[in-house]
Amino acid sequence: MDNRRIGVFDSGLGGLTVMKELMALLPNESLVYFGDTGRIPYGTKSEETVLKYTRSDINFLQTFHLKAIIAACGTASSIALPKLSGQYDIPLLGVTKAASRRAAAVTRNGRVGVIGTTGTIRSGAYRSFLEEENPEIQTVSVACPMFVPLVEYGYAEKEAAKMIAKDYLQEIIESGADTLILGCTHYPLLKKVIGEVLGDSVTLINPGECVAGDVKKLLEENDLLSKEKQTEQYQFYVSDDPAEFIRLGSMFLERPIDGLVSRIDIEKYN
Amino acid sequence: MDNRRIGVFDSGLGGLTVMKELMALLPNESLVYFGDTGRIPYGTKSEETVLKYTRSDINFLQTFHLKAIIAACGTASSIALPKLSGQYDIPLLGVTKAASRRAAAVTRNGRVGVIGTTGTIRSGAYRSFLEEENPEIQTVSVACPMFVPLVEYGYAEKEAAKMIAKDYLQEIIESGADTLILGCTHYPLLKKVIGEVLGDSVTLINPGECVAGDVKKLLEENDLLSKEKQTEQYQFYVSDDPAEFIRLGSMFLERPIDGLVSRIDIEKYN
Repeated sequence: MDNRRIGVFDSGLGGLTVMKELMALLPNESLVYFGDTGRIPYGTKSEETVLKYTRSDINFLQTFHLKAIIAACGTASSIALPKLSGQYDIPLLGVTKAASRRAAAVTRNGRVGVIGTTGTIRSGAYRSFLEEENPEIQTVSVACPMFVPLVEYGYAEKEAAKMIAKDYLQEIIESGADTLILGCTHYPLLKKVIGEVLGDSVTLINPGECVAGDVKKLLEENDLLSKEKQTEQYQFYVSDDPAEFIRLGSMFLERPIDGLVSRIDIEKYN
Repeated sequence: MDNRRIGVFDSGLGGLTVMKELMALLPNESLVYFGDTGRIPYGTKSEETVLKYTRSDINFLQTFHLKAIIAACGTASSIALPKLSGQYDIPLLGVTKAASRRAAAVTRNGRVGVIGTTGTIRSGAYRSFLEEENPEIQTVSVACPMFVPLVEYGYAEKEAAKMIAKDYLQEIIESGADTLILGCTHYPLLKKVIGEVLGDSVTLINPGECVAGDVKKLLEENDLLSKEKQTEQYQFYVSDDPAEFIRLGSMFLERPIDGLVSRIDIEKYN
């Protein structure tokens, strides 16, 4: 039994979709979340910059007494985690590896689609992880940079989102993939429109759900589960004004977070 | 006569639309451009963060020997410039004031529309500047956060852009405004679709063109024009990997900039 907290970080508020999965699957765990809202997005920035920002996110989280750190951000998981693995004493889990394992397990025809930010797709991390799982798997990857703004600016349910989704997903449809990894935190919020475009025959993989499963397994196998809920079970930190995070965060988390969010200067942790 | 350079800054590459206007109107001037691509965008961030980032952009530009600094960024011009005016020895010009003056001069019915980022619209800077010009002017402002991604991700000419533009511009149409300020560097690249939605009776104001006119006037009136072209007439600095800036920059500037772009660490100038 181990009552230490679990740290979660993301480029902004998208990682709250991962936080939600962790809360649901591990209701006794205490979680501390950092969203780098002052430097968001990561998905359009260079590998070097994403690596630098990820390091400072981890440095900040390590000021807490933690038993594991989760990279909720698809871009940080894809670009930075493979380069940082082994550099920290604490278990560091990312969404990319977790989702690749799940996708490799569920695909029937060995063709897996991956959608994500420009940075995630350019990194080739999903392709590498999927090949590690099964060298026979064929991966088709498409960067969908419009998906994050469509979600953040309230267009997820509108006709424009469907038109853009049809455009982006054409290559996935043509590939015959039977499984699609929603490789960015925001994409589960487009599940409806993506499902409509692809039809029922394609299984959608939510990386947040997969990594939550990995965390549960890690804690169980190492006898690290929390015995009981702690006071201040959930804490949130951001690097810009918390107001917008609080407002949109409730949409992602499906519960109010007012009063639990503090601001820090992330550049001090570079 | 004064051969010192003019500094121009923006949150990223959008400011190149302003740079283009300066190059066209002042062909003998030497210009140094900084795009904060490592921390882009400004338009969705808080006032405090935009102010901090703008200060470091100016600090960096002041390492050059300059005769004026132009805030090409609509958000920085709207949020930070009113707070920073008088704090520097060097003339500091922004797009917001320049565009407000022009709009106030050209409107026939006294109703002016303003579109911009969330930060620009929330600041109320356009409304204040327009009222300063003419207290009778009625301003109708709409934040259009989808417009930047539509331009950056290649959707400016597609049907989805028109659908979203119709949505955003509905309030402008209903207001009866005869003049619309394109209050963000990217919006001139949506001029065609905005023009189609609004029709010919609405005059579109490009703030980059307005501020270039202001700079020319300032230089002429103070005998500060360059006598002749300098070597290295145009230099570009960015805070992330230059590759993407070089690629997209040619679209904004309509000329190649390969070999002229260097990377700096902007956080050192905070």
